This record gives sequence, C-alpha cells and structure tokens, in this order.
Amino acid sequence: MNTHDLFQALGQQRIETPSWGYGNSGTRFKTFAAPGAARDVHEKIEDAAEVHRLTGIAPSVALHIPWDEVEDYAELRRFAESRGVSIGAINPNVFQDDPYKLGSIGNPVPNVRERAIAHLLDCVEIMRQTGSRDLSLWFADGTNYAGQDDLRARKRRVREALQRVHDALPDGTRMLVEYKLFEPAFYATDLFDWGAAYAHCLAIGDKAQVLVDLGHHAQSVNIEQIVAFLLDEGRLGGFHFNARRYADDDLIVGTTNPFELFCIYAELVAAEQSSDNLTRTTARNVAYMIDQSHNIEPKVEAMVQSVLNCQEAYAKALLIDWERLAAAQQAGDVLEAYRTLTDAFRTDVRPLLAEWRRSEGLPEDPIVAHRTSGYQANVAGERGTAAAGGGFPVKS
Amino acid sequence: MNTHDLFQALGQQRIETPSWGYGNSGTRFKTFAAPGAARDVHEKIEDAAEVHRLTGIAPSVALHIPWDEVEDYAELRRFAESRGVSIGAINPNVFQDDPYKLGSIGNPVPNVRERAIAHLLDCVEIMRQTGSRDLSLWFADGTNYAGQDDLRARKRRVREALQRVHDALPDGTRMLVEYKLFEPAFYATDLFDWGAAYAHCLAIGDKAQVLVDLGHHAQSVNIEQIVAFLLDEGRLGGFHFNARRYADDDLIVGTTNPFELFCIYAELVAAEQSSDNLTRTTARNVAYMIDQSHNIEPKVEAMVQSVLNCQEAYAKALLIDWERLAAAQQAGDVLEAYRTLTDAFRTDVRPLLAEWRRSEGLPEDPIVAHRTSGYQANVAGERGTAAAGGGFPVKS
Amino acid sequence: MNTHDLFQALGQQRIETPSWGYGNSGTRFKTFAAPGAARDVHEKIEDAAEVHRLTGIAPSVALHIPWDEVEDYAELRRFAESRGVSIGAINPNVFQDDPYKLGSIGNPVPNVRERAIAHLLDCVEIMRQTGSRDLSLWFADGTNYAGQDDLRARKRRVREALQRVHDALPDGTRMLVEYKLFEPAFYATDLFDWGAAYAHCLAIGDKAQVLVDLGHHAQSVNIEQIVAFLLDEGRLGGFHFNARRYADDDLIVGTTNPFELFCIYAELVAAEQSSDNLTRTTARNVAYMIDQSHNIEPKVEAMVQSVLNCQEAYAKALLIDWERLAAAQQAGDVLEAYRTLTDAFRTDVRPLLAEWRRSEGLPEDPIVAHRTSGYQANVAGERGTAAAGGGFPVKS
Amino acid sequence: MNTHDLFQALGQQRIETPSWGYGNSGTRFKTFAAPGAARDVHEKIEDAAEVHRLTGIAPSVALHIPWDEVEDYAELRRFAESRGVSIGAINPNVFQDDPYKLGSIGNPVPNVRERAIAHLLDCVEIMRQTGSRDLSLWFADGTNYAGQDDLRARKRRVREALQRVHDALPDGTRMLVEYKLFEPAFYATDLFDWGAAYAHCLAIGDKAQVLVDLGHHAQSVNIEQIVAFLLDEGRLGGFHFNARRYADDDLIVGTTNPFELFCIYAELVAAEQSSDNLTRTTARNVAYMIDQSHNIEPKVEAMVQSVLNCQEAYAKALLIDWERLAAAQQAGDVLEAYRTLTDAFRTDVRPLLAEWRRSEGLPEDPIVAHRTSGYQANVAGERGTAAAGGGFPVKS
Repeated sequence: MNTHDLFQALGQQRIETPSWGYGNSGTRFKTFAAPGAARDVHEKIEDAAEVHRLTGIAPSVALHIPWDEVEDYAELRRFAESRGVSIGAINPNVFQDDPYKLGSIGNPVPNVRERAIAHLLDCVEIMRQTGSRDLSLWFADGTNYAGQDDLRARKRRVREALQRVHDALPDGTRMLVEYKLFEPAFYATDLFDWGAAYAHCLAIGDKAQVLVDLGHHAQSVNIEQIVAFLLDEGRLGGFHFNARRYADDDLIVGTTNPFELFCIYAELVAAEQSSDNLTRTTARNVAYMIDQSHNIEPKVEAMVQSVLNCQEAYAKALLIDWERLAAAQQAGDVLEAYRTLTDAFRTDVRPLLAEWRRSEGLPEDPIVAHRTSGYQANVAGERGTAAAGGGFPVKS
Repeated sequence: MNTHDLFQALGQQRIETPSWGYGNSGTRFKTFAAPGAARDVHEKIEDAAEVHRLTGIAPSVALHIPWDEVEDYAELRRFAESRGVSIGAINPNVFQDDPYKLGSIGNPVPNVRERAIAHLLDCVEIMRQTGSRDLSLWFADGTNYAGQDDLRARKRRVREALQRVHDALPDGTRMLVEYKLFEPAFYATDLFDWGAAYAHCLAIGDKAQVLVDLGHHAQSVNIEQIVAFLLDEGRLGGFHFNARRYADDDLIVGTTNPFELFCIYAELVAAEQSSDNLTRTTARNVAYMIDQSHNIEPKVEAMVQSVLNCQEAYAKALLIDWERLAAAQQAGDVLEAYRTLTDAFRTDVRPLLAEWRRSEGLPEDPIVAHRTSGYQANVAGERGTAAAGGGFPVKS
Repeated sequence: MNTHDLFQALGQQRIETPSWGYGNSGTRFKTFAAPGAARDVHEKIEDAAEVHRLTGIAPSVALHIPWDEVEDYAELRRFAESRGVSIGAINPNVFQDDPYKLGSIGNPVPNVRERAIAHLLDCVEIMRQTGSRDLSLWFADGTNYAGQDDLRARKRRVREALQRVHDALPDGTRMLVEYKLFEPAFYATDLFDWGAAYAHCLAIGDKAQVLVDLGHHAQSVNIEQIVAFLLDEGRLGGFHFNARRYADDDLIVGTTNPFELFCIYAELVAAEQSSDNLTRTTARNVAYMIDQSHNIEPKVEAMVQSVLNCQEAYAKALLIDWERLAAAQQAGDVLEAYRTLTDAFRTDVRPLLAEWRRSEGLPEDPIVAHRTSGYQANVAGERGTAAAGGGFPVKS
Repeated sequence: MNTHDLFQALGQQRIETPSWGYGNSGTRFKTFAAPGAARDVHEKIEDAAEVHRLTGIAPSVALHIPWDEVEDYAELRRFAESRGVSIGAINPNVFQDDPYKLGSIGNPVPNVRERAIAHLLDCVEIMRQTGSRDLSLWFADGTNYAGQDDLRARKRRVREALQRVHDALPDGTRMLVEYKLFEPAFYATDLFDWGAAYAHCLAIGDKAQVLVDLGHHAQSVNIEQIVAFLLDEGRLGGFHFNARRYADDDLIVGTTNPFELFCIYAELVAAEQSSDNLTRTTARNVAYMIDQSHNIEPKVEAMVQSVLNCQEAYAKALLIDWERLAAAQQAGDVLEAYRTLTDAFRTDVRPLLAEWRRSEGLPEDPIVAHRTSGYQANVAGERGTAAAGGGFPVKS
C-alpha cells in the first residue's frame, strides 16, 4: 500500500468513545473518584470532543440510557455537533432497576419483561431523535445457580423480546447483540457466547448483528477467528474494544496482548478488501466502539491512549503484504506465512502516524498535546471531584 | 415418577461405547500397553459386548475407519449381532494420513480436500453396509500460527465439504458435526465451538446436527446451557462423553464433576418430556456415545464404570420433581429451585439401580461381576500385550 | 467410623460466618437491596446467631474493620456472647480509602504503606479486645498495566509490612495470608497465588499461615492438592469458602462442584487423622470461614444453606473407608481407589445429619425451620430495606 | 543504553536449543515425519550447530537421556565441540518405561522409585562426562482420578528423591526443577506449579532452582511476575521457552503473545542490573533453553525462528528507559509508566539486530541465509524421512 492510500485509509478509521468512560467507574470493591471526571452527559460529550480534537478519528460518542437521559435529545444532538462530535450508539440499561434482579427480557415475570422491552423501544425513539444508527444491546440476564430458572424458557423469552425490538427499528438502523460469558450472572448467562447471539440474530432478521466485546470470552478463545466467521456470514455488527487478562477487566484496549488486537484488525482489513460483496460490505459497516471502565487511569488520557492503540493496530494491519501472505498460505509455507504477517506487526508505525497527523493538522503526539494542554487541570478545577460509590459497603 | 415409569426409562437408556476405547491409547508422551487390550475390530466388539452383558444399556459400538477397516462390513455387522451388539456411529479418520499435515477438508490444496471427502463418502457407504444411522465427524483441521492460512477461506472449504457429504447421506441417517476448542491445532481450529458447528449445520441441511464432546470446551463454559440451546433449536445430535479438568483429558465420564453430568442429563430429561415437538423429538434421538482414551485404566472395567456413571446421572435426573421446580422458578425462589434440583442429585440411586438390574436379570454390581468373571484374565491370556506406540521418540 | 464417632466428629465441626454476608452486597453493576438485610454490626451478629441456632455448627462471626467498627469492642464481644456466638477472625480493610488507589502495603508511597500498616496494627488491638485468634489478611494490591510498578519492589514492600504485623501478634494468635489471582488488580496481584503467600509466610515466621479462598484460583487449578501440600508443610491456616465457575463469583459454597468440596474435606479429614504431628495439628487448627457475596439470595437462608453444604461434604468425607482406600492406592488399583473415595460421596447423608440434629436438639431441617420461623419477615419489618449502592453509575 | 553496550549485551545473550527439537515429534493424534529430521544425537548436534552458525547465540544443546544415549559421552562432547557447540542441560526421562505408568519418583512402589532415582543419578554422571552444569528435571508424575493416590504421600516421595539427587550433584552444578499444571496427568500433577517446585527447592538445598516452562501454567497466570518473584528469592534457575494459547502447545516461542515474552525479558534485564547481589547473580546465571515440539514446521528453520524471537524480545528489553520508568512508577503515573515500557516494545529492532549481526560476521537475515544455504535439502537427501509414530492407533 502506498503512502497516499495508507493516509486515506488512516483518515477513514473511526473509533467511537463511550460517554460512561468519562465518568467515575470502578470495581465492586471501590470506585476511586477522579478529579475532573465528567458529571453529566454534557461534560462527557466535551471530553469525547477533546479526544476527537487530539486524535481526529473519534468523531462520535455512545450514550447510555438512562445514565445520559435528557429532556431534549434534539438539543443534545446539536450540543454534540457544536462540539464537533455526533451521537453514536444508544445503549439501553436494563440491569440497574430493582425489578431486574432476576433478569430483564429473560425474567420469568411477564411484567418485568414488558418493562424492559418498553425501555428498549424508548431507546429506539432516542435513536430517531439523535440520528443514531446503532442500538447496542447488552443484557446482564442470567442465573447464579443450577435450577434457578429454565434455560430453554429464558432463551425463548430473549428471542421474543429481541424480535419485537428488531421489528420496531427504522430502516437504515440496526441492533447490535452483545454476548458475554459471565458477570453479573455466574451460573448461566442468557446470551453467553457469539453462537447464541448469532443464532438469535439469524432467526429474527437482517437488522440484527453480533457485537464482539474483547473481554467477554472464555480463556484462550481465538477472537479473530470469531470475527472472521461473522464477517463471512455477514453478521458482524460491531466491537466493544477493551483489554483483559482474566475476566471482563475493561482495561485500555491493546495493553494485554497487542498482537491479538493486530490480528483482529488484520481480519477486518482483509475483509474490507474482499472480493465477496457480503463480507466487504459487512466489514465496512462495522461499528468500532470502545467500552472500558477506568478505575485508576485519568479518564481522558486513558481514552486518547485507547484510540491510539487501535490506530496503531490498524496501521500495522494496513502494512500487511497480502500477496506474499496468500502465496505462502497456498504453498503451505507455515513459517513464511507467519513471518509475512508479523513483519507488519514488527514495524514501528509511530513515525508514519506522526506524519499522517501532521498532514491532517493534528498534534503529532496526542498524549503530549493533552498533557500540555491544561485540559485535565481545567476540568478538575471546574468540575471538582464527583462523589463515587462502589459495590461493597463502606463504613457509614 | 413412580418405580414402574422409572424402570421403563432406565430400560430405555442407551450408551454407545467406542471401538477405540478397547485398544491401547495414550498421551503424546507414552502409550502404556495394557495386557489384553483389543488388537482388532473383532476383539473390540467382543469387549463392547461384555460391557453390554454387564450393564444392559450399551447395545452398540462405534467404529473408527480405517482403524476398524474390514473387507466385508456385512460380515462384521453379523459378527456384532452374534455377540449381542449392533454397529453404531461410523467415525471417519482424516487426520492420520501424511497429506493431512495442514488439514483435511480445510486444507489449502484441493487434491487433499478431495481425498478427505472421498474417505467421508466411503464411510457413508460403510454406514449402509453396517446399518449405521450416524456419521460422526471430527476434524483435526486448523492452524498453529497466526497467518498460517486464511481463516475465511478455510471456513468456506469446510462448508463445501460438509455440504457434499450431507447431500450423499441416505434418508434416515444423519451427520453429527463435532467441534473442539483446540488440539491438535493450537492457533485456530476450523470447527472451534458449538456456534461454528451449528452455523454450518443450519446452512447445509436437516441431516446435519451438532455433536457435543464434554472435553472440547474452553474453561468454565456451561455445557448444559449449550445442550439446552441446541435442543431448543432442534440441532443437538449426540454426545461424546468423557471427563476433563484441563484440556481434552478424555477421562472416565463423570469423574471430575458428577454434578455437571447430572445437570446435562437434567436438560435432556426435561426436553424428552417437553410439550414442544421439535425439542422432544430432538431429545429422543440424541446419540449418547462415550469417547475416552484410557491411559492407565483397565479398558473394559473403565468402560463399565463409564456406562454406570452415565446411568447414575440419568437416574438422578429422572428423580427431579419438575412441578416443584417450575413453581420455584416461576416464583423467583432461587434457593428453593436450587434445592429442588439438588435434592435429586443428593439421592443415592445405587439401591434403585441394583433393583432395576435384578429385575432385568443383570448383575447387581456390574463391576464386581466383571472383576469376578475372569474376563480380563482370559483376554490377557489370549491376546497378550499388544505393542503400543506413543507420540514422543523413544531410544531406538 | 461408627455412629458415635461420626456424631462426635459432626459435633466438632465449625463454620464461621462473615458479618458482611448479612448486609447488602452486589456486583460492580448493581447491588440489589434486600429487605431485612443487616444494617450494622449488631444486626449482623444477630443474623449470625440465627444461623448458629439453626445449624449448631456456626458459633462465631468474622468482623470486617472498619465496616464493623464500634467504640467499645469489649461491649461488642459481650453482645455477641449474649447472642450465643463469639467474635471470629478480624478482617482489616485496606482497599477502600482513597489513598489506596495504587495499593496499600505494596503502594510506592511510604506514607500510604504506613497508613495501611497502622490499620493492620489497630486490628491486632481489636483482636485483643474481642478475643479473636485470627487476623485474616486480604490485600487488593496490584497493578493494572505492565510497567505500572516494579514487581520486585512491591514484593519487598509487602514482605516488610507482613513482617511488622506478624511481630506485633500476641502469642496464641496468628495471621492468615490470603492470595488471589486477580480482581480488583487486572495485570498483577501482589499476593497472586498460594506459592507467593507461602513464601512470605515461611520467611516471616511461625504465626503466619496461608488462607485458601475457593474462588481465588486460576481455572482448572486443583485446590485439594494445594490444601494437601500446605497441610503437609504445616502452613494451612484457614479457608474462605464459597463457590465459583468463572472468577471470584462468591456464590454459595458447594453449588458449582460439590465433589470438589468433598475432595477438599477428604484431605482435611485424612490430615486430622494423620500420624504426622505437624500435619495433624495443622489440620485441627484450620479456621473454616465462609466468604460470600450474596447478590440475589436471601442473606440468612443463603448462609444456612452454605453451612449445610459444608456439613454434608464433611459428613461424606467422614464416611471414607481409609483402609480400603490405602490398600487400593498401594496396589495401584486406580479404579478401585476412585470407587472407594466416591462411594462415600455417593452416599446420601441427609438422614444421618437429620438424626444427628435430633440428637443435638437442633431442627431436623434447618431450612424449613428458618422458613417457618418468621425470622426473615421479622427483620424485614424491623429493619426495612437499607439503601444499596453499586459500582456503576446510576442516573442521578 | 548506547550502541556499544547494546552490542555487548546482545553478544552475551545465550539460547540453548534442545536435541529433541530436531527429531520428529507430534501430538497424540499423529506425528508427521519431516524429511531430513535428525535420526540420532549426532545429527541433532549438527542441526544445533547450524542454528548457532546462523544466529551466533545458540552455542549449546540440551540432551535427553536415554533418547540421546551413547556409549562414550566424552566422545560426544568432543563431537559437539568440533561442531562449535557444547553440551548443555541433561534431561533425564523417567516417563517412558512401562514401570512408570503410575509415576516415577512419586510412584507408590518403592522399587519403581529406586529405578527412577538410579536413572537420575546416572544422568548426574553424564553431566560430569559432558561438562554439563544443569540437570533439568521434569516429571510426568501425577494421578488421573481423585483418590487414585495419597497426595501428601506422593509429595513426600518426591521430596525424598529430589533430596537424594541434589546431594549427589557435584559442586558448581545444579538441578532445575520444572513444574507443570497438567499433562500427562489429568487430576493432579506432583509438581503442579512454581510454588510446589519452589517449596521443594527451598527444603532440599542451594543447588536446587526452579525452571519455568512458558507453557506449563494455568490460563491467565502472569508468568513475568513469577519470574520476578523467583529472581528476588534467588531461586530462578532457567527457562523452557515455547509458546501456547491453550495447553502445553509447545509452539515457537513468542508467537502467541510477543508482548508477554518482552515483559519476561524486561524482568530479567532489570534483575541483571539490580543493586541486589542475590537477584543480580541469579539473573546472570539463568539457563535460557528452548523446549518445543514442532509438529508441522521445518525443524531447523523453526529453531532459528525461535532463537530470533528471543533475541528480538531481549533487544527490546535492553531499550527500556529504566530511569524514566522508575520516575513514573514512583509518581504513580500509571499511563506514563505503561508508555515507557511499551515504547521499547514498539521499537522495530530488526535494523539494530541486522547491524549487530554484520558486526559479528553473522548473516544479516539468518532465515534467508538458512533458506538459501541448501542445508534443509542436504539433510533431507542424506537422512531421508525417518519413520514417525504417534499416540493414537493406526490401521495395521
């Protein structure tokens, strides 16, 4: 790929940041309040805009409802646009109301399921008002003990609810169905893996696609292979990027195994260039979203770092010599194929990216630019330190 | 469930034992030759017949081709029937010929794929000749290094091969598509999880169903939930029973976590009694097969123990009070539901099973009967100790 | 073992319940407030006393400081005794104060370490005042990113702090050093496994022993083997009992794999009867403690169930035929040895336990007794539903 | 670090290759015979010499006894030296003789244990004759079923055997005690983790150190932290390098997560420069050894690639800015510390390494040099394709 094409590709990369990544978050043990952490959706959008100003590739922000609930979503949309970003995916929350203790759309009680579905449909309406394309669906639903509920019945309840929401989606929009191995359910999670999400999507319709969160798999699962499988089936809808070693650790994407992130991007770049229409179209419509929970990191800086890690992985994937790779694969030359892939990974793309940023009028080193900008000190001064909770009790 | 119904259900349980479980097998480090281990398919069938004589619920034996290749399969079928067992699933082997080094049906080289497909079609012919209903398909196919092959291309090759075999299946037969997380491939396995197997089955046709091997999942995966999901979708075809703690350890089923085996049987018993036609029919046609690799255990005794562990799990599942369970689930009474399920598990079903065996004219304690029968000493005398290999080099 | 000896052994079993198991707790996503959940240490002690009344084997309650901080610990001790229970282990909390964001005794900043050590020493003083024998030490210390801190330096800081606390322990008391694979640290945890805890204990002195929490291991680790190893080295101090499938799920002990809990008790019963002085003494001084976080279960009922599950596992372990087992082991009779162990597990000990309870004047079925006692309705009425927090933000 | 010091450090790096990496090896399913694979110890040494000629940092070869058994070890030593390499670690094999079916030094039968110990002592004698410094001890010992053997008794047998071998070691030599989570034992492995190996080493004496095999840990375990812990305790003896995603996959080191390999080398480089005597001395005496099982790769090329992957990781670790790192750590600047570490990892060290090779008279690109040398074609012609076995049965 020549520099012109490289720069063009880099200019088209998009990483959506999540509103909830700018506020305080933590583990069940403790949430450490961060000075300057955003306190409401407007401050979150301002932080997201700062990340986009610094990186140039983070032009949208995902919302979480009701965390980001406002009276007037059209106004919110204008506010975002005035700051240079748009509203991205809408993320309904059906896990924090008390009736959801034993599940939302999988709950044995019909009224609770209806309440959850009503909230999902409200979020479809918010999509209309904010111009959002994607309804991003994660459910905490599941059980903690064998026998607690009927697994087949729960599956059917989930299917029915997804169908109803699917059928309410306006044309040109879609629902992204996320799966997760566990947490907060510890025996069985209703949408437990990509296969479960895929089976539901296939059954309910074309507007349903699978969302891959990098932290939601069992140990040792090959995520890039799931990505390749879903791309080939035309059912990969989007990502929740983050990093993990243990469980759903929600660390900065690319920090645990940067080679894995590169391999995932390699599948996506290959699919973007595929001669197969479905695969190519699917790849080009993937929603790249970050979903992290910063416990100890400065929020805005952590988000900039996350975007940069994705950019680096993508840039390396763009450098893969696909012809050499295909030739080695066809020849069964295992190690030459491995080296062809890893030659791209071994390349230091930082100079290339600095040059691209210069060409785009962006700061050459977004981290340095952020650190010297005074942004963090400013927001700490203006916003102060919001109170933070945390799952375990503290001495009253 | 009253005793009459219990006994009837117990009398209908079926566990198929594998021919390869009666010969020498081992780890990559060493195969310890066992005195009396079966040396050919006739001896394997005789051992399988002994297991059936002792337990009464193991009336068929699975074959592995070419390990069990013979000139005349009609004769083999008669031989088996003369010993009181029938030929069960046919298991093609497309992983031990040298051309399969980089895969069989997923291999980048068309000739190798054709060779593999030809063998699979040969096995369909063997099904006809032996009266077998099930073609049991496991593929070692995969890659060891990122970049080694094109993951989407491999998926498409696998799809095409499965389609061709599917379309050659006689009416009334089916193919069971097995999946496995890893081994012998260590980067990516073409049929890597139930979702991959399910997606292929769905695409290729009604004669394709998923086979669940208890040792082929990532750590912590909830197998009974996969079972429930596949039952509800009408795509659960069969099991390969064994036990594991770490990888595909291939130990005696039920030895690592007997509660998990019980939970799996609980899903099956519930599905057998389901009001949903598809679920009920699917459950009643599940092929229950053992697939183990005995490294240190006496082969026949290990197989009897395996069958008994399945019987015990099934008997406990039959004792579940489904009405009480459903009521607790509907009421959201988490701990009452857990106790309802586990009350059945806590029950000691050994007296019940001994009584059932008496009523069937079977030995009350099949292990004691086997140990006192002289069978093991007899075969050790007749067969001697067959030479055994093993993966790692030995001093020549 | 005859019934007299069995009953005697059952009468000596002890399970300590944790004060924090009676209050609201949850996941990082949400804490569902439970009606009647204990709001302060006195209510927690009353709940613990109810569990002891019902089961007869839960005569002590562990405290968490500062969650259970009071002005007058002598008074608290008397209060507990007046309710029929005693104060058990003291659990310092050095993970919820803001300065502990990057660690407590492993923190790079000396002042923070001193603050943590001062709290630990305060807890030693609370031990004196409450008559507690065990200082139960869990540290959330660790790092989230490679490079975040110097791993060897952290290790040395932890060693020094443990040494200082150890040396302050009164005679006849001890410190139990807990380890955990991860959470809330997601790159490296300072006390990351039993080996790390053991190495520290060995270095600092005889009053330091290892505490095994059943939920703190990597997937597939054999916990009973760690128990056996530590018993043989004289360094097993205690347990935190709970159950898990995935991470530190903190479910009711024995619910995921009851056979594993049985195997752990089997090691303990064997060690209690060992001819080796060190092993036997160590086993007899093990502190059996529950550490669970009930998210969806009724708190007191969940605790009764937990105690009963431990009792059942212990009773089964008492039934092991050790002579038959040793003979099979010596003979290398793998399956006979397995059957000898599992014969005990297969036994339904519920009738035996009901009889023992009758003989002790306890309710035959503690769960039924609890459910019919009105206790839960009473506390719900008296205490109401305490506000509950939760890690993730809620819409203000 | 300036270029002079870098080059000096690079010139001192050492990676020992294993004789068994040059012969045929495979999985339990199949060993694919490779053309030109070494058939005896002399051919293996010639292959090892080729790897050293190409890389300049692989000057020794580990032996496996009895796979590499010869009449005259002094002659073998001279043969190796004539080829430019020396004899490295001696690896006894106590897992392939039939009496070891239920273990070697942990076997319940005293005679079997004596046989194993005698072999270990023979290997000590081979150390003398070959000038080897390290006795590298891996034991397959363990059990497959709960109850199969007494875990504490096995531990004591292992301790006693290790003690006897330790006490027979000549001055200036040592034993490296390897641990492994599982395989070929699937319930419990006698030396199951670093803690078990460490506890034994500590008890038996100063010549015993722990050997870390990168493929022998439970999922998600932080290996670099174990390395740091053992370095600080002065008990890290050596490595068996390889890569894995799932189990003990024995792939080419650095291929699954190159960042992890870098983090391990970062700990070693830091320790080499430590002001602590014990840590520094320990680090400088670490034995760096490769232990891989090439199933599908060309043997010599795979070994060259392995050495290069280690070299690259080491070179990157040498580039870490330790002062900047320490400053960030002290300041609690989490992300600056992460970036400091990863700046070194992000650097493309291939030009630097090419320059170092030129300065050493080595081929700039060892892989290209190997591929164009005709070595592989030559040995394939001379040696042909040796017969290969494999764990599972083949049709006779």
